[in-house]
Amino acid sequence: MRDFLPEDKARRERVLAVIRDRYRAHGFDEIETPVMEEYSRLHAGIGGDNEKLAYNVLKRGLDADAIAAAAGDPSQLTDLGLRYDLTVPLARFYATHRGQLPSVFRSIQIAPVWRAERPQKGRYRQFVQCDIDIIGDASSRAEAELIVATLDTLDALGLAGGSVRINDRRVLDWMLDSFGFDAAERPGVLITIDKLDKIGPAGVAAELRERGAAAQSVDAFESFLTRPMTMEYHPFGERQIRKLLPDAAPTDIVDHLVGIGEAVAASRPGIDGQPTEVPLVFDPFLVRGMGYYTGTIFELAHPSVDYSLGGGGRYDGMIGRFLGQDVPAAGFSIGFERIVDLVAAAQDDAPQAVVLVHDRDIPAGELLAHKAALVGGGARVRLETRTKNLKALLERAAADGYTAFATVSTGIPAGEVDLKPLA
Amino acid sequence: MRDFLPEDKARRERVLAVIRDRYRAHGFDEIETPVMEEYSRLHAGIGGDNEKLAYNVLKRGLDADAIAAAAGDPSQLTDLGLRYDLTVPLARFYATHRGQLPSVFRSIQIAPVWRAERPQKGRYRQFVQCDIDIIGDASSRAEAELIVATLDTLDALGLAGGSVRINDRRVLDWMLDSFGFDAAERPGVLITIDKLDKIGPAGVAAELRERGAAAQSVDAFESFLTRPMTMEYHPFGERQIRKLLPDAAPTDIVDHLVGIGEAVAASRPGIDGQPTEVPLVFDPFLVRGMGYYTGTIFELAHPSVDYSLGGGGRYDGMIGRFLGQDVPAAGFSIGFERIVDLVAAAQDDAPQAVVLVHDRDIPAGELLAHKAALVGGGARVRLETRTKNLKALLERAAADGYTAFATVSTGIPAGEVDLKPLA
Repeated sequence: MRDFLPEDKARRERVLAVIRDRYRAHGFDEIETPVMEEYSRLHAGIGGDNEKLAYNVLKRGLDADAIAAAAGDPSQLTDLGLRYDLTVPLARFYATHRGQLPSVFRSIQIAPVWRAERPQKGRYRQFVQCDIDIIGDASSRAEAELIVATLDTLDALGLAGGSVRINDRRVLDWMLDSFGFDAAERPGVLITIDKLDKIGPAGVAAELRERGAAAQSVDAFESFLTRPMTMEYHPFGERQIRKLLPDAAPTDIVDHLVGIGEAVAASRPGIDGQPTEVPLVFDPFLVRGMGYYTGTIFELAHPSVDYSLGGGGRYDGMIGRFLGQDVPAAGFSIGFERIVDLVAAAQDDAPQAVVLVHDRDIPAGELLAHKAALVGGGARVRLETRTKNLKALLERAAADGYTAFATVSTGIPAGEVDLKPLA
Repeated sequence: MRDFLPEDKARRERVLAVIRDRYRAHGFDEIETPVMEEYSRLHAGIGGDNEKLAYNVLKRGLDADAIAAAAGDPSQLTDLGLRYDLTVPLARFYATHRGQLPSVFRSIQIAPVWRAERPQKGRYRQFVQCDIDIIGDASSRAEAELIVATLDTLDALGLAGGSVRINDRRVLDWMLDSFGFDAAERPGVLITIDKLDKIGPAGVAAELRERGAAAQSVDAFESFLTRPMTMEYHPFGERQIRKLLPDAAPTDIVDHLVGIGEAVAASRPGIDGQPTEVPLVFDPFLVRGMGYYTGTIFELAHPSVDYSLGGGGRYDGMIGRFLGQDVPAAGFSIGFERIVDLVAAAQDDAPQAVVLVHDRDIPAGELLAHKAALVGGGARVRLETRTKNLKALLERAAADGYTAFATVSTGIPAGEVDLKPLA
């Protein structure tokens, strides 16, 4: 867990303000839930591996007997935990407040989550997630709205050129079925397929054999992975999707993906209305870890980095578990901690940021009158007592985003200080 | 702990944005610390009664033996806790990062804290605090900057007319000493004095006698509380302060208070530079609960409510406990949860907020092209499928801050929808 000093904190808040603004422009509404949820809800099997990483809060008022009795079952020591994602709280929120929300509810959640990860570079135990979700729309328009809002937000952050890798869990399921993997072995097979980028087709086949997957299925799958392909290019759409899948992929799933592409394309017209490249890439081997996805899955890519900047998908089953009634849902989460490092520190939004360097013995009233006059005129103002090393003082102020300075001594009328630009 | 629905969340974020903007204008810099701090730091005696209300986090990896061994000492079950205020984390932050901060450090912290309060109206277990602190300035200018920034923030929130009740812990100490209360009984006497507003001078005297305070001291104090006073009015300043205290109050303490008043007055000139009423009220019986205050203490008042909207004071000893070296400090905390209820919902900042009511069978591409054209033009856009009760749908959108709507069916070119104002 980290402290944020002023420069970092200012950058984080500016990035969050852009994200919030763009998501709101796209018709999403921000909500907030408490950081603590009930232990039983956090450990209902929806959170996958994250459940094991949850911080649990000690029950209050435990006496010696209660503690001793919990020796065999530590879960008796806790009734609340810190959320490890924003999806479980959203499902609980929607089930609670559904009657007060629009029939298609587009939510924004921008908030910290906690996971007791082993400390390593780029992993934090407290980090901010930026999620948008659409609850109540089963059509491909939902995915398109999520993708367009996310790419528009990247653009607004100065990260134009983003794209989305996309697949569908049902494609994976159908494909594995068509190669003869039975339902029981498919979760294990998916874990191996997820490594395709790293270990290649031969590596995948070898690992599947090691796992004891049916030999005939592995052979069929390997020969599909290594089949010769024509190199002609197709933009995202039915031809590209069908080319990358075994023959006879189910039409309804392909149509859903094609529908997303068409809606995204319509939302991002080129200059003078010319068609532009659809920023979608069909990847039939994209898996994504969470068990709750039921349909489309996607990951956010940007040419400046070789890792994903976010992801999401459709999870039509989850809300129903809290509500006792199926409700379609899809979400897209931006990896805020990854993105904030890529964004150049935006300009301070104050029109002018002024350091007033003053003599130690100037009367406080005079000094604060100068400050008030500048603040009243729209500036951001920091007071600094003059030190021997004025240069170092001004350099630090410039690093903190200050753009001008004045030296003041007693007797100058308020509002008449002489501002000089900070180099 | 509460969920916030879109309307409340939007209002909260807008109020926070104003507070952040005004504090920054006054030269304060925002920082952030993790929500969890070490158990030992949260329970070092600085937090007063709040320490007992802390949520503690269960240690990870406890085995049955460790749990059984903790039966006699539950603190062995925990090594982290959720912060119950922002002052203890600030002291830890400053001690850690001092070398990277300006010599006078003006911090902003806007963040949630947690206390396991008994549920009651207006008390929450998770609530947001907005603190500003000045570390490294022992002069009365620090208090003046805090007060001016806070009142300016209230003004910007549409809550003009705020004022600050002010006292000094050293005044209380000197006054009790002058009536003969010895040092050991003064903390108890302060608890009783804190009720003066509610139980009056006779009630205070009766309770002090019940407590077993020295009879002669109680008599002297009661006759001071009930002394006849001339009614002539003095604005905040030396005459007012001395009039409200026993004779011969220490000059250095009175001068410090007077200095604050002069600096605040200079910061808030009236129209055409005319002097205005100083928004300070000296209250020699203002106590404030926290044990760490060492000098000035204050509370924020507003004519629209009879309770305090915030408070703070000088705590010169605390940072030193973490640093092994005395560092002067003073802070002012706005009671965000109280203020947010007083602030009228500010206008949405999007220039236009549009609901697109569409036929169920409109192609997604056409619909999203309309949305993209409007978003590109600076609007906030929500999609709604047309329902039989269009009136109810539009009323809900208006309540959510939408200002215009259009009904779209297939075949309208993007950007050519016909917008109508929402009543």
